[in-house]
Amino acid sequence: MPSDTFQFHISARDGRARTGFVSTPRGDIRTPAFMPVGTAGTVKAMHPGEVRDLGADIVLGNVYHLMLRPGAERVARLGGLHRIMNWPHPILTDSGGFQVMSLAKLRRITEKGVTFSSHIDGSKYELTPERSIEIQGLLGSDIQMQLDECVKLPCSDAEAERAMELSLRWANRSAIAFGEQPGKAMFGIVQGGAVESLRIRSAEALAAMNLKGYSIGGLAVGEPQDIMLRMIETVEPFLPSDKPRYLMGVGTPDDIVESVRRGVDMFDCVMPTRAGRHGLAYSRFGKINLRNARHADDPRPLDETSDWEPARRYSRGYLHHLVKSDEILGMMLITGINLAYYQTLMAGLRTAISQARLADFTLETKFGWEQGDLPAL
Amino acid sequence: MPSDTFQFHISARDGRARTGFVSTPRGDIRTPAFMPVGTAGTVKAMHPGEVRDLGADIVLGNVYHLMLRPGAERVARLGGLHRIMNWPHPILTDSGGFQVMSLAKLRRITEKGVTFSSHIDGSKYELTPERSIEIQGLLGSDIQMQLDECVKLPCSDAEAERAMELSLRWANRSAIAFGEQPGKAMFGIVQGGAVESLRIRSAEALAAMNLKGYSIGGLAVGEPQDIMLRMIETVEPFLPSDKPRYLMGVGTPDDIVESVRRGVDMFDCVMPTRAGRHGLAYSRFGKINLRNARHADDPRPLDETSDWEPARRYSRGYLHHLVKSDEILGMMLITGINLAYYQTLMAGLRTAISQARLADFTLETKFGWEQGDLPAL
Repeated sequence: MPSDTFQFHISARDGRARTGFVSTPRGDIRTPAFMPVGTAGTVKAMHPGEVRDLGADIVLGNVYHLMLRPGAERVARLGGLHRIMNWPHPILTDSGGFQVMSLAKLRRITEKGVTFSSHIDGSKYELTPERSIEIQGLLGSDIQMQLDECVKLPCSDAEAERAMELSLRWANRSAIAFGEQPGKAMFGIVQGGAVESLRIRSAEALAAMNLKGYSIGGLAVGEPQDIMLRMIETVEPFLPSDKPRYLMGVGTPDDIVESVRRGVDMFDCVMPTRAGRHGLAYSRFGKINLRNARHADDPRPLDETSDWEPARRYSRGYLHHLVKSDEILGMMLITGINLAYYQTLMAGLRTAISQARLADFTLETKFGWEQGDLPAL
Repeated sequence: MPSDTFQFHISARDGRARTGFVSTPRGDIRTPAFMPVGTAGTVKAMHPGEVRDLGADIVLGNVYHLMLRPGAERVARLGGLHRIMNWPHPILTDSGGFQVMSLAKLRRITEKGVTFSSHIDGSKYELTPERSIEIQGLLGSDIQMQLDECVKLPCSDAEAERAMELSLRWANRSAIAFGEQPGKAMFGIVQGGAVESLRIRSAEALAAMNLKGYSIGGLAVGEPQDIMLRMIETVEPFLPSDKPRYLMGVGTPDDIVESVRRGVDMFDCVMPTRAGRHGLAYSRFGKINLRNARHADDPRPLDETSDWEPARRYSRGYLHHLVKSDEILGMMLITGINLAYYQTLMAGLRTAISQARLADFTLETKFGWEQGDLPAL
């Protein structure tokens, strides 16, 4: 049997934060990592070559969207998700569970799994832990997730416990279904709502399964940031320190900085891409709404110090015009600018950790956000 | 006074067809040329670097759209159209007349010009020959158009004559307003509906003005192709043979081939870009509707012989998926594929003319279209 080329290397620590890389046969993922979301087989409004150029080592695909359209078996027939997307680098897929809960209709959860109707055409599907792993295999995903049940916050402790225990049983079934796949990984997902004891129970039980990585799920679903950070702090000591930790669906730049400080290695979020399609830019000045009339006559670029050429090349006035005119190029440019800012932030975090100056980096970065945007001309 | 660096060089002829280049201070435009349409300051769904890479020497901007939003004075304050678009190569602008007729509300045409209400917010504007040239100057356009009145076909001969004569008077006023601008050009526009004698009168009168180029307007507005081609044949002998000829708003690949054979040098059309946003591809196989279910499981690229990497790289199945899912990337990719096909066609025409084999090239190209798409797998 070939040696497992899926490995996590930590090269430096600063407090609880770590930097290093996940090695896979498709390439290394520098951590802490931000993974752009490629929902239905495309990071919306971006060419894959751009996503690579702006610094992403890995993108995410959503099982829920892909199983409905174009369908997992079809993706496999077309050569797999990497092939169809023209993205030869690592791909992480979620299990579909979260989006079944948030998007599908007529959901019914049983011990076996979840049945639901497609939000596109109403057709019926079943998703079990085994089927989710099968789908992720058909897609060719490098990092796969167990099926879990993610409850909405706030919820009762009993409800959080029931869903967490079900997710643990599904983790076990997912691990069995995944089996041994050298070069690939299946992560378990810590659940437990906002209840510390449940989170600890979940993390301990998953750790005992000796998985290749651990996700923290069910957070950033509307609760205040302090609850999210407290849950991370709660589970972090119970997650194996030599395995990557992935905080699912998070988040704002501030969420990411604070979570990295608490030992998280991987992130994904639709914010930079979704905001980019609505004229909202993330930058070292904080959030900038390019729809605002103050930008209409502004010849300055969004950020002349950016590593990403479009952030330096195009004027705010032009970006404002594109946004106001609903031009696709506006979505393309601002999405790219946002993803580039996220990747620049991650690179800054990695360097800061390796130089043991994460605290200073955090202060400097937040100072920039708090200063806000350039004064109007 | 500097010598005029706007010049037209013809390097070879084949029948009435010509190949060569228009030289401008911003670069040469190889002819016959297809100019992608950059309506509101962006070739929709395309990065300008891509438009350049796929072979375009020049793009078009629409005065009507740009005067409404962001406004010509604002474009000038932001550094001009080339600057804001990040397109340092030549730009041609129309005069706004055609789109005022087709898009604006409450139009009123007088000898002085046209007043209208914006289709965006109803605000009132006046466009005169002088104001159109002023706007095109504010945009920084390299090749500017006279304001003209384009009548809808079919129309009465009297109506066609009235509009043609008005357009001639406006051509004179436009030429005076444009004055001497070394390195830039203003083209007159031949009108006259589908009436040969009116077209000839228009061409002769414009030729007497000794302009730097001549457009043929008011065609491809719904009339059969044979009428369009007959009008081109009618006016061609009356247009100075040493000046570029631009057939406005044309057209399909077949329209372009047939017009090049009749002595036309420049074209623009929204077809490749608009079709690209609706899942329709132009190719050497003719038109391909990627929305069609026959492509869903097809792993083959759209055209493995294409010069444009996305046409070779992405599968038809993936493009179908993107189109069905209304993904922006589908619009981006198919728009690029279409523009690349148009540019490949123009390059083929140029080479064929220079080798005096335009008749053979035409037959080969039409044979490819008539063969149709690849057989289904």
